[in-house]
Amino acid sequence: MIPRLDATPDQIASAARRVMARCDELARVTSTPGRIERVYLSPEHARVNRLAAEWMREVGMTTRQDAAGNQVGRLGPPDAPALLLGSHLDTVPDAGRYDGIAGVLMALEVVRLLRAPGPDGTWLSPFPFALEVVAFSDEEGTRFGKALLGSSAVAGSWSDEWWSLTDAEGTTVREAFLDFGLDPGRIDEAARRPSDLVGYLEAHIEQGPELDRRGESLAVVSSIASARRFQLLVEGEARHAGGTPYDMRRDALLGASEAALAVETICRAEHHIIGTVGQLEAFPGAVNIVPGEARFSLDLRGEFDGERDRVWNAIARELDAIMGRRGLRWSAREVHSAPAVFCAPLLQEVIGAGIASTAPVAPPVTLFSPAGHDGMAIGAITDVGMLFLRNPDGISHHPDEAVSTDDVGLGIRALAEAVLHLAAEPT
Amino acid sequence: MIPRLDATPDQIASAARRVMARCDELARVTSTPGRIERVYLSPEHARVNRLAAEWMREVGMTTRQDAAGNQVGRLGPPDAPALLLGSHLDTVPDAGRYDGIAGVLMALEVVRLLRAPGPDGTWLSPFPFALEVVAFSDEEGTRFGKALLGSSAVAGSWSDEWWSLTDAEGTTVREAFLDFGLDPGRIDEAARRPSDLVGYLEAHIEQGPELDRRGESLAVVSSIASARRFQLLVEGEARHAGGTPYDMRRDALLGASEAALAVETICRAEHHIIGTVGQLEAFPGAVNIVPGEARFSLDLRGEFDGERDRVWNAIARELDAIMGRRGLRWSAREVHSAPAVFCAPLLQEVIGAGIASTAPVAPPVTLFSPAGHDGMAIGAITDVGMLFLRNPDGISHHPDEAVSTDDVGLGIRALAEAVLHLAAEPT
Repeated sequence: MIPRLDATPDQIASAARRVMARCDELARVTSTPGRIERVYLSPEHARVNRLAAEWMREVGMTTRQDAAGNQVGRLGPPDAPALLLGSHLDTVPDAGRYDGIAGVLMALEVVRLLRAPGPDGTWLSPFPFALEVVAFSDEEGTRFGKALLGSSAVAGSWSDEWWSLTDAEGTTVREAFLDFGLDPGRIDEAARRPSDLVGYLEAHIEQGPELDRRGESLAVVSSIASARRFQLLVEGEARHAGGTPYDMRRDALLGASEAALAVETICRAEHHIIGTVGQLEAFPGAVNIVPGEARFSLDLRGEFDGERDRVWNAIARELDAIMGRRGLRWSAREVHSAPAVFCAPLLQEVIGAGIASTAPVAPPVTLFSPAGHDGMAIGAITDVGMLFLRNPDGISHHPDEAVSTDDVGLGIRALAEAVLHLAAEPT
Repeated sequence: MIPRLDATPDQIASAARRVMARCDELARVTSTPGRIERVYLSPEHARVNRLAAEWMREVGMTTRQDAAGNQVGRLGPPDAPALLLGSHLDTVPDAGRYDGIAGVLMALEVVRLLRAPGPDGTWLSPFPFALEVVAFSDEEGTRFGKALLGSSAVAGSWSDEWWSLTDAEGTTVREAFLDFGLDPGRIDEAARRPSDLVGYLEAHIEQGPELDRRGESLAVVSSIASARRFQLLVEGEARHAGGTPYDMRRDALLGASEAALAVETICRAEHHIIGTVGQLEAFPGAVNIVPGEARFSLDLRGEFDGERDRVWNAIARELDAIMGRRGLRWSAREVHSAPAVFCAPLLQEVIGAGIASTAPVAPPVTLFSPAGHDGMAIGAITDVGMLFLRNPDGISHHPDEAVSTDDVGLGIRALAEAVLHLAAEPT
């Protein structure tokens, strides 16, 4: 017998409004006035962790910041395994205010709704697990070019190579840890044991137009994209712009420009493969010098690992051809690789039941997520389930990123119902 | 009757070696350890001005730094009109050590050779003009994106709009003047009156491969390129890299990439037109965001103004087509425009005579200069003549930029002979 959520429409509406107001409040914690940018191990990261901790305590949770700067709140018996709810609080440059953030704040509202005053005044006693809310510290990888640093630490998959990654100012991850007051030597303490976890549930805006196109509010996520990221270097020869005839030029920027267009052409011809060149810069970068060097990024996503790798190989062959024609050298450094993560059938089922409790859509919409999420890392240690919220026009990673208060309310209800369904499962 | 230069081969060789050693010495005055970069109104600019002043005094000149930071040395009667000899001491980023610099140092050696101990112990009295060596302060435009700031001030063509140009740190030209100890209100004092000038002679490395291909050391310059420079902006929409399908993307970087390739295609089809995209950057510049904005530079040079403008119009039409197809907007801000400057026939003739005095090549090689030079600005107030030195493999604006000591020696002799020929002309 599955208990129904004991929450009035007013409670849900009030919870949704609180999420929206707090998204606005966190948007003001930024390193760039007038824009939202909040990166790993920054002063802004510390400030939002303090705010999140305060809000966790407000719903009765005990709080800690883990060894990788993730902020964690817990409610329930100390020795019970935990169901993790959450998302991330870091952002891309010039970000919107909901990506990740809304998921953390919705998780807090779910805890508030599920926390009935039991005999001890704090907890709905029949739950077979504790609830934890995790605000991951680095999902976007904005600062160090490596995504999922926070959730990778929790998954116990931190790599020692990452300590020497640098940000734009040349600060290493190790130095940034020390500056932030974290001890790099204790990074392993952030790792969770699979036996201590029941699963991980995350609510997130879709970051795409599908729900909006279909006129639906919520979706079950079936899997999270397979992804690889590369930093590419093209090397030619820097020469004087006036005095160097075309037949003597080895212009690295023109090679990189052809490469960016080739990525588009190759990926457009495929289904469910997306390749993006988000960064590109020419060096030395003077108006009157033929660029001797160009650097660009490639973000490649697909529903399946094999398809993604086949497309990368096609891109690499095309780069060989382009650079060969132009007398350029090219090389690629892989900075991120993640296999597709398939959401656990049970968690898809309880999220589907949660969505069904909010509207008579049967069956609920199921979507594949081309965008990466913390679940890609957490999937290594526990089952992952995700709930998508409608994202008007699919605009994300942009100041115009939006979600409606109504959809946030529906999402809170669906997620709380999902937790109740999970609690009713035989263990 | 034209006097021949009274200089022994040893004197010339010693002068050439001094030029090479001083090029090395100035190369060490850089803002970037391990690379050469010396920009307008920087501490490095002040340091090389002090060195140049010292060397000017060493050959008997009186010195001053003018109101635009140009370093000037003068030898001769105070009321005589002056023949200007010189070039510039600023550099591009990651520069070579000869572009501009060699011309200033060669001018000093010419003064040293021509300065015979006359009755007053300082000057070759029959000269109908004074000699001045000018070390221009900004030819490359590296810091503020506007070239020829130093020589434009001397030409009296300083524009008040330039005061608010900014460098990469947001410092304006006005602020940089004050920081450097210059008074923006006195900029007009840098301007020279045409009646006070006899002409301007500059020796410069070719910055191209023509002399090297022909196996010649020196050339007379016939004209300096017509040039226009633009900063272009492409605007689309920043979106999440994973969640935005191709049909919803308006990727500004892909538009800019197509534009850079179109510049190459259009200019390659022309004779004596060179277009270069030296700077290109995508914004917001994150690995997982479709670029909503891209900025790039365009440097366009041609032998004739009309041809150059026709090509720019063709490029603009192609940009309309590219951006139209991609749903992007584009705009261009013209940051520099200079008509072709034709070297004065008399100065071409005396430089030709100077070259002829060094080797039995008849007639001397004459080249058009696609690269810009201070003469483009100075041409507005006096006649301009230029002497090119062989530049192995045409490599310039690059650490491998070279010139041989022998060619510098030939250039010093040719330039000194040219001055003697000019002095013998009826006024």
